[in-house]
Amino acid sequence: MAGKYFEELRVGQRFDTGSRTLTEQDVSKFAELSGDFYPLHMDEAYARTTIFKGRVVHGMLGLSAASGLAVQTGIFDRTLLAFQEMGWRFLRPVRIGDSVTVRMEVADKRETHHADRGVIRFAVRVENQRGEAVQEGDWSVVIAKREGLS
Amino acid sequence: MAGKYFEELRVGQRFDTGSRTLTEQDVSKFAELSGDFYPLHMDEAYARTTIFKGRVVHGMLGLSAASGLAVQTGIFDRTLLAFQEMGWRFLRPVRIGDSVTVRMEVADKRETHHADRGVIRFAVRVENQRGEAVQEGDWSVVIAKREGLS
Repeated sequence: MAGKYFEELRVGQRFDTGSRTLTEQDVSKFAELSGDFYPLHMDEAYARTTIFKGRVVHGMLGLSAASGLAVQTGIFDRTLLAFQEMGWRFLRPVRIGDSVTVRMEVADKRETHHADRGVIRFAVRVENQRGEAVQEGDWSVVIAKREGLS
Repeated sequence: MAGKYFEELRVGQRFDTGSRTLTEQDVSKFAELSGDFYPLHMDEAYARTTIFKGRVVHGMLGLSAASGLAVQTGIFDRTLLAFQEMGWRFLRPVRIGDSVTVRMEVADKRETHHADRGVIRFAVRVENQRGEAVQEGDWSVVIAKREGLS
């Protein structure tokens, strides 16, 4: 899919991403990369004593995977200029072996003081393989205008 | 540092983390793990044509590193039950080779309908080696009460 310019995105437009399984190896790699070895993610024996009754994928890994799935749709190709802000809620645990997919809807479009770009706010929902929302919120991104290229 | 229970955290209390350099290898590993190979992060020639004039560390990597630095302080050891929500702004680019540190302040404490835990909202600021805020926002986390252990 070619990257979408600001003019091409309409409020209410929806984009669904591919799906991805979050593995034990992903959790190990994320712990190394982030430096977050919290035992809720790393230690099954400890995690069983918690409110989650077992290991949970780092929330930030679920979010990072969601951002990768979003980029992989291609809708941002060369048109995404910057990630500006987000509001985000961790609703349910993501378990090792769960598959996540992302549903994005254009919630708002906003002009800026730059004529060549605008801000798009997406309502974003990350679902597991049972269709349950595990994380959700909104992402505001700066998107190039086609007319700005001239 | 021993993990802080809900009762031990006071509004206005501050915690600073260690510091960490985000390297080219970190960016490569994060791209593999997240699946986000956006050329702003991966392709110096392309990135030079953008508003950032060069490669930028994934915002989500900066955020993930910040969460790891926060966990490494030890204040959450065995007392952090869950990450609930966040508001987050990406203010300035993090460049490859930049070092980031995190300043956290207890902004709010809230009881829940569970007697054994409460919600702490931290105001969080990620700074680079020049003391500039690169990312900031708030993290709301569920923290165990000491009295809840009985």
